[in-house]
Amino acid sequence: MNKAEIRALLEQVKKQELEVDTALKAMEDLPYKELGFAKIDNHRELRVGYPEVVYCEGKTVEQVKAIFQFMYAKESNILGTRANAEMYASVQAVCPEARYNTLGRTITVQKNPACQTESYIAIVAAGTSDAAVVEEAFETASILGNKVLKIIDVGVAGIHRLFDHMDTIRGAKVIIVVAGMEGALASVIGGLVDKPVIAVPTSVGYGANFGGLAALLSMLNSCASGVTVVNIDNGFGAAYAASIINKL
Amino acid sequence: MNKAEIRALLEQVKKQELEVDTALKAMEDLPYKELGFAKIDNHRELRVGYPEVVYCEGKTVEQVKAIFQFMYAKESNILGTRANAEMYASVQAVCPEARYNTLGRTITVQKNPACQTESYIAIVAAGTSDAAVVEEAFETASILGNKVLKIIDVGVAGIHRLFDHMDTIRGAKVIIVVAGMEGALASVIGGLVDKPVIAVPTSVGYGANFGGLAALLSMLNSCASGVTVVNIDNGFGAAYAASIINKL
Amino acid sequence: MNKAEIRALLEQVKKQELEVDTALKAMEDLPYKELGFAKIDNHRELRVGYPEVVYCEGKTVEQVKAIFQFMYAKESNILGTRANAEMYASVQAVCPEARYNTLGRTITVQKNPACQTESYIAIVAAGTSDAAVVEEAFETASILGNKVLKIIDVGVAGIHRLFDHMDTIRGAKVIIVVAGMEGALASVIGGLVDKPVIAVPTSVGYGANFGGLAALLSMLNSCASGVTVVNIDNGFGAAYAASIINKL
Amino acid sequence: MNKAEIRALLEQVKKQELEVDTALKAMEDLPYKELGFAKIDNHRELRVGYPEVVYCEGKTVEQVKAIFQFMYAKESNILGTRANAEMYASVQAVCPEARYNTLGRTITVQKNPACQTESYIAIVAAGTSDAAVVEEAFETASILGNKVLKIIDVGVAGIHRLFDHMDTIRGAKVIIVVAGMEGALASVIGGLVDKPVIAVPTSVGYGANFGGLAALLSMLNSCASGVTVVNIDNGFGAAYAASIINKL
Amino acid sequence: MNKAEIRALLEQVKKQELEVDTALKAMEDLPYKELGFAKIDNHRELRVGYPEVVYCEGKTVEQVKAIFQFMYAKESNILGTRANAEMYASVQAVCPEARYNTLGRTITVQKNPACQTESYIAIVAAGTSDAAVVEEAFETASILGNKVLKIIDVGVAGIHRLFDHMDTIRGAKVIIVVAGMEGALASVIGGLVDKPVIAVPTSVGYGANFGGLAALLSMLNSCASGVTVVNIDNGFGAAYAASIINKL
Amino acid sequence: MNKAEIRALLEQVKKQELEVDTALKAMEDLPYKELGFAKIDNHRELRVGYPEVVYCEGKTVEQVKAIFQFMYAKESNILGTRANAEMYASVQAVCPEARYNTLGRTITVQKNPACQTESYIAIVAAGTSDAAVVEEAFETASILGNKVLKIIDVGVAGIHRLFDHMDTIRGAKVIIVVAGMEGALASVIGGLVDKPVIAVPTSVGYGANFGGLAALLSMLNSCASGVTVVNIDNGFGAAYAASIINKL
Amino acid sequence: MNKAEIRALLEQVKKQELEVDTALKAMEDLPYKELGFAKIDNHRELRVGYPEVVYCEGKTVEQVKAIFQFMYAKESNILGTRANAEMYASVQAVCPEARYNTLGRTITVQKNPACQTESYIAIVAAGTSDAAVVEEAFETASILGNKVLKIIDVGVAGIHRLFDHMDTIRGAKVIIVVAGMEGALASVIGGLVDKPVIAVPTSVGYGANFGGLAALLSMLNSCASGVTVVNIDNGFGAAYAASIINKL
Amino acid sequence: MNKAEIRALLEQVKKQELEVDTALKAMEDLPYKELGFAKIDNHRELRVGYPEVVYCEGKTVEQVKAIFQFMYAKESNILGTRANAEMYASVQAVCPEARYNTLGRTITVQKNPACQTESYIAIVAAGTSDAAVVEEAFETASILGNKVLKIIDVGVAGIHRLFDHMDTIRGAKVIIVVAGMEGALASVIGGLVDKPVIAVPTSVGYGANFGGLAALLSMLNSCASGVTVVNIDNGFGAAYAASIINKL
Repeated sequence: MNKAEIRALLEQVKKQELEVDTALKAMEDLPYKELGFAKIDNHRELRVGYPEVVYCEGKTVEQVKAIFQFMYAKESNILGTRANAEMYASVQAVCPEARYNTLGRTITVQKNPACQTESYIAIVAAGTSDAAVVEEAFETASILGNKVLKIIDVGVAGIHRLFDHMDTIRGAKVIIVVAGMEGALASVIGGLVDKPVIAVPTSVGYGANFGGLAALLSMLNSCASGVTVVNIDNGFGAAYAASIINKL
Repeated sequence: MNKAEIRALLEQVKKQELEVDTALKAMEDLPYKELGFAKIDNHRELRVGYPEVVYCEGKTVEQVKAIFQFMYAKESNILGTRANAEMYASVQAVCPEARYNTLGRTITVQKNPACQTESYIAIVAAGTSDAAVVEEAFETASILGNKVLKIIDVGVAGIHRLFDHMDTIRGAKVIIVVAGMEGALASVIGGLVDKPVIAVPTSVGYGANFGGLAALLSMLNSCASGVTVVNIDNGFGAAYAASIINKL
Repeated sequence: MNKAEIRALLEQVKKQELEVDTALKAMEDLPYKELGFAKIDNHRELRVGYPEVVYCEGKTVEQVKAIFQFMYAKESNILGTRANAEMYASVQAVCPEARYNTLGRTITVQKNPACQTESYIAIVAAGTSDAAVVEEAFETASILGNKVLKIIDVGVAGIHRLFDHMDTIRGAKVIIVVAGMEGALASVIGGLVDKPVIAVPTSVGYGANFGGLAALLSMLNSCASGVTVVNIDNGFGAAYAASIINKL
Repeated sequence: MNKAEIRALLEQVKKQELEVDTALKAMEDLPYKELGFAKIDNHRELRVGYPEVVYCEGKTVEQVKAIFQFMYAKESNILGTRANAEMYASVQAVCPEARYNTLGRTITVQKNPACQTESYIAIVAAGTSDAAVVEEAFETASILGNKVLKIIDVGVAGIHRLFDHMDTIRGAKVIIVVAGMEGALASVIGGLVDKPVIAVPTSVGYGANFGGLAALLSMLNSCASGVTVVNIDNGFGAAYAASIINKL
Repeated sequence: MNKAEIRALLEQVKKQELEVDTALKAMEDLPYKELGFAKIDNHRELRVGYPEVVYCEGKTVEQVKAIFQFMYAKESNILGTRANAEMYASVQAVCPEARYNTLGRTITVQKNPACQTESYIAIVAAGTSDAAVVEEAFETASILGNKVLKIIDVGVAGIHRLFDHMDTIRGAKVIIVVAGMEGALASVIGGLVDKPVIAVPTSVGYGANFGGLAALLSMLNSCASGVTVVNIDNGFGAAYAASIINKL
Repeated sequence: MNKAEIRALLEQVKKQELEVDTALKAMEDLPYKELGFAKIDNHRELRVGYPEVVYCEGKTVEQVKAIFQFMYAKESNILGTRANAEMYASVQAVCPEARYNTLGRTITVQKNPACQTESYIAIVAAGTSDAAVVEEAFETASILGNKVLKIIDVGVAGIHRLFDHMDTIRGAKVIIVVAGMEGALASVIGGLVDKPVIAVPTSVGYGANFGGLAALLSMLNSCASGVTVVNIDNGFGAAYAASIINKL
Repeated sequence: MNKAEIRALLEQVKKQELEVDTALKAMEDLPYKELGFAKIDNHRELRVGYPEVVYCEGKTVEQVKAIFQFMYAKESNILGTRANAEMYASVQAVCPEARYNTLGRTITVQKNPACQTESYIAIVAAGTSDAAVVEEAFETASILGNKVLKIIDVGVAGIHRLFDHMDTIRGAKVIIVVAGMEGALASVIGGLVDKPVIAVPTSVGYGANFGGLAALLSMLNSCASGVTVVNIDNGFGAAYAASIINKL
Repeated sequence: MNKAEIRALLEQVKKQELEVDTALKAMEDLPYKELGFAKIDNHRELRVGYPEVVYCEGKTVEQVKAIFQFMYAKESNILGTRANAEMYASVQAVCPEARYNTLGRTITVQKNPACQTESYIAIVAAGTSDAAVVEEAFETASILGNKVLKIIDVGVAGIHRLFDHMDTIRGAKVIIVVAGMEGALASVIGGLVDKPVIAVPTSVGYGANFGGLAALLSMLNSCASGVTVVNIDNGFGAAYAASIINKL
């Protein structure tokens, strides 16, 4: 294909339909300009049915409102993450059916029918203190059209609580494990299932936890094969990746 | 089920077929003893067709040889990772058809037919210096029965090299991105595909690379959604996770 | 529900004073109580000899209240750590005799008689600024039924203050050493006694103290044998471990 | 007092139009002006070609006001960075035409004509959340007399947005790349242009971003040659260096 | 020279069977023996109940030999840690019955009868690669006169292997948990027993393991109460602390 | 001396004036009990004329007040560091002549005449933003009775400002260098003088400054011989050490 | 194949002196040359004005040789960095005039006349121990066609040595500052010149230098405006960036 | 003085003895050129009788030899640090009386009489493993003409060994404390003396010692006032600073 384009160019030069300078300039951008990237983007939305996601932190209330207003006119679901209550109030003014998850700090607007998948994503969390991350993951996976189950407070300090839910966990197509402190839950689950496990370290803990670093390193070094990891407190990222897998 | 077991126990106590002390002891282990974990393990091999994996580093040559010898009697494929040439030599004595990948430092014994999957895993690497990790991932994914394609030396410094392979990359069911230095390749690919991307930071680089930390942090903070990460240089872990997804 | 209680139940069943169904119902919450947002580990006391402890940080006031209310119906002592005054106020509404330690941030409910052990735990602290951690450790060790002595402000900068209390320190069965800054107190005491020393680094200090990291590393590298370490500011964990040892 | 001004003075002395004592007095603050709490480096403009810049953070409102008042009497532009609104209010009282950039936190006083250079500096930013740094860089480069273009929200997660602006970026004499999270934008641009690229990591992100460390390490390890880096969030430093290069 | 020996000496003096000068001379090395390059802490056994231990790393072969030679004349057991084979060879020349543990790198001289305690210390290790640390702990605990049991390769990736040994683990008076990678084993065991758990992180692993840091942070942040931690790879320290507890 | 004490003990045992058990107990504490540590402490105050120093951070207002009230009855100067305005108000109620340095956060009570030394301590600071640390050092050195000179805003970015003060700096007996950002001032001064240089890194800066870490590492790695370093922002510690040297 | 060469080709096509197919064949490797293990970025020279550079570390001797052999057929200079002597020997076999800089670890092949620029790059280094980095920078800048001057051993500990060379340094168009330890040289020079300063931290030093981290942080936090930084020991990167600026 | 120089210049311009351009150029260097820095350096040697010090690490054997040969012709003592045996052999060929300290890795040439000071420097070390640093400090302090006493193996784990030497330690004018592991010795000594204490952290230890970081942070956070710190393993730096103080 590149070859064809260069040939065409050369033919034009030969026929003197194209200046040497113009041809030269065209060739400078050759290796990447021919890609229809803008098309890719549109294609993306059509293809995966994924809404644009608005990362609200670091944006002003006005910016968040304007983005929602613009997107509201389109036919996709909308998801805003790391949003505060003030942002929600301003969004509500322009998207009346917007919903806010206080713990998870998400704003969602459900435009498409909730096309529940057959297979489900299991979100398993070590403690009740991990709830914020669980909720962000839950809202993300749901708005992306997945069936999601939550299993909370099954940390390894009382490991029998986990075992009682192993059937549900094993039944999932993808498993998101949310844990702070030492994050051992990811390794234990990783050793018991044959499904993709996406681990989310949380910043829950104190002292030598160093804002989630302990759980992060723990999960990256998991002795159980098949565990992959996302950023600390990144419930959104885990759910997004899980959704891609769940829909394969 | 728990309930049924406790009821049975209580009935035995009531009928005085069981001493109170014996019942008490039985109940101490209650929440987990009833799990048939050894069965799970056997089940695991049957179910996923995955061989046991031997992490050779930190083991003596004799230990590695003995483990291979024992496993050789079984009908599974065998994979040894982080093995050196001396280990391979000793393994060959007992498993004549064992194969060694010098770059990837793997020993493999192919017992089952190479049941190529229809779908394939793409391993995309930024530079030729990442080859050791690529090879470990390739051997792992292959011995686990997956079709695998390698695309090497497509780092973002010459991004058109990457674009020429986008069709192959997009065609994969799962994509493993291997990159050292700043690991930007994971974000760029993550932004162009709708498939699960598993990023492997490598220790390639120097100075403020800090043994792969730069690439690791970079990948964990990827601005592209859907990227999950494994440990530095962990080609095995990425391929193992990719294989689970590829076979879903 | 501890061992003695279950034994009593079983004896009643054996003597046919109690129906199997009634016993079963009494025991059905044994492994854990599902509160929706939390799973209270009732089996814990049987398994590890201690009731569950409520880590209040990251929980809502309502959640803390609900957990105390549920546990209040049982015959165990209750301990809540990292609790704020608002949580205490709400707990008091349902557990009138709950007590709050402002410095230590603990809520305690004493149900069992304070069965003081003969042997005692000594809590030795370097400075008055370490008081929060000392109090958390003191309340924990006390509610777990131990005799506890506190020795405060004996840091190594004026080492004679320490020597004046060596008899009391040597007389303990376990010693908890609480120190911030460089944490040298743990090494000095570790070199003078033949008892288990549990060191708690505190975040007291500034600059290159890095939130307690200096004291933590110092204690982990103690040149005195026999010193073990818990997380930064983890007075609870130190006291819990000390209690297990004190009761051996 | 810049080179031209001193030359004028010397010429007047030579022509004996000016007394040596009068010239001496005019020049006596040349090396620096002692304000008691600060020594304003008047010689700087002669030495490095630029007036001194006022780093406002850590100074009191009174100090900032006094410094602006002193400098206002001279013929140079004035730039204050990391200034808050209160500082601006007090400066306005003595420099009526001072201007405040709320996002960029800069106070500027334009004394010299805006001697736009022919060549321009391009400031390219990955996300809208990087705006504070972009604005600081923009104000700095502008007050130093450069023509500046801003290109915002072209992060690599949607790389086609970047490609649409490649002509503008390539047309610049120097390029400042501002990016948080994984900072991959610097490498991608670095691989596409033949101009100096100055990368500014921002603290935008969370978790394992560690306050900009991820982007910083990423940029330092860029696989694209020719990229140099300044401190996290240091828009001023990047623009200052870019200005030097733009005026070569 | 332990308590019993000094008491015997004093009794002899009291009965006037021994001259004061002779007794004095026997005791004159009591506080420590000056070897020039080292001061052997003879008083230690009296003070903390254990003889001094020789940390061989960083000492010359000659120094190690001289220290063993001096201590050999006394009636205590001798333990050298972090010793290499060359050191052992030189020690053997002066202490013929010295024994070397190649994996654990310890030199031991058994002078006192192996006064096995009734209660035992359980050393539980995640993987076979942790053997060096296990052996150091084993030799230390043994030479200090404890009964010790080893349970190897029971990491959480195949958690049923652990459960098969829970009876043995629960039967111990103290439990040492040795684990590298993510060190999750400490939390899992900590949640299942009511005995003191001393966790030893090992440097086994690679990449983001950072020489044992991952396991160390993991263990310090254990969600299971009652776990205390020693330095990375510090099998000696764990065993020493365990011995103190086991003999309480 | 030790010997003499033991001899006396043995003689008493021989004469049966002392029980064997009592002698044994006396000898357990042998190596340190004979040290009159409390005396040392008294001696310290008499000898060096140094007041007790009150580290106020982490203490309650009431505690600070009580300590000042108690010390006020004695004839020493009093110094409180890291004190807030509220603490000062409460101290003033009991020590009317107490003085507060708002920037330096010190409370001082001058009881002794200001016995200015002949020799002086020079405090040299890079920027006006380092003022808080400079003031803490200044108040400390002054209350300890030293003559002190301050030289502010002579950072290396305008190195001629420094050179103008070299005579004053060289005339000091000890030099305290206070600098944030990259802390280069310590090295430059260290290379120009033959006096002890005590470097104080400050937390002034942002981004990769990491709360003073950059300046700290810089100063520890100074290429100029003779520079020693104290903790970040530790103006007190630098002045205390400087005072000891100044009074030698 | 650079711009001039492509233009010549196009002109020939236009004049119909060259067949389209022949031209096409000549250009078919334009975007990159697939070597199997590497993709040589031929388009690079057109895009960024420089030929590709061979980073030899992590490549096999055979790979390095093959890449040089391929590039040798083209009309560009060749630069290999981080090469060892063995690599050089193998390269020499196919590029007889290749030259090796032992200290700088570079292999260079000079194909184009050394088109010395009028303006020059000054490489200023703190100590003789920084020579390896200086040489890498020198070879890089030279092969890219720049005039380069080296000024060695002018660290700030003897700052007069630096001042003696200020005229040379000020005369440069770009200045590369190479320094290890605390890296103060970059700030001092940055405060004295009005030219772009590119700082290269080196790993020279020990202890808290942490492999160059101290100098890196120091340079990133430079109080002198206009300093930009490259990776630790990255002489190549600094020279590459300097060359771009020098040729503006 | 500056003023005078400028006046002179102006007068010359006025009298037309000096071109405006020449005057302008002279004033560019105004603030620092008038400093006779080369003189300062010569003055330094004369004044403090300190030899030049040769930091051998990173230099070639030939460079070390050449520097010694050059300095040998002068009348100063010579000190080389971080030298290996090969360097010593080559130095010996040109400086026959050169002496090598194997442990301390120093080469010394004693040209001046060993002008022992009355006052002495005490070097106190925690363990025999710190010997390398002790020896470097000892050789440095000695060659600089100080009386030095060494007290080895008095770590806090057996604190009575330290107390026996307190008189010697207190008698010193300056005290160097050398300690690895947790470095507690510095705090203990700092609390017992009224002399300057210079602490040298060593890299002795393992695991979470992180190459001396634990001891470094510990010493920087010392609760004892008056302790200053040098780089890890920097025996030279400590001795150099101590020598300056000892000679005050």
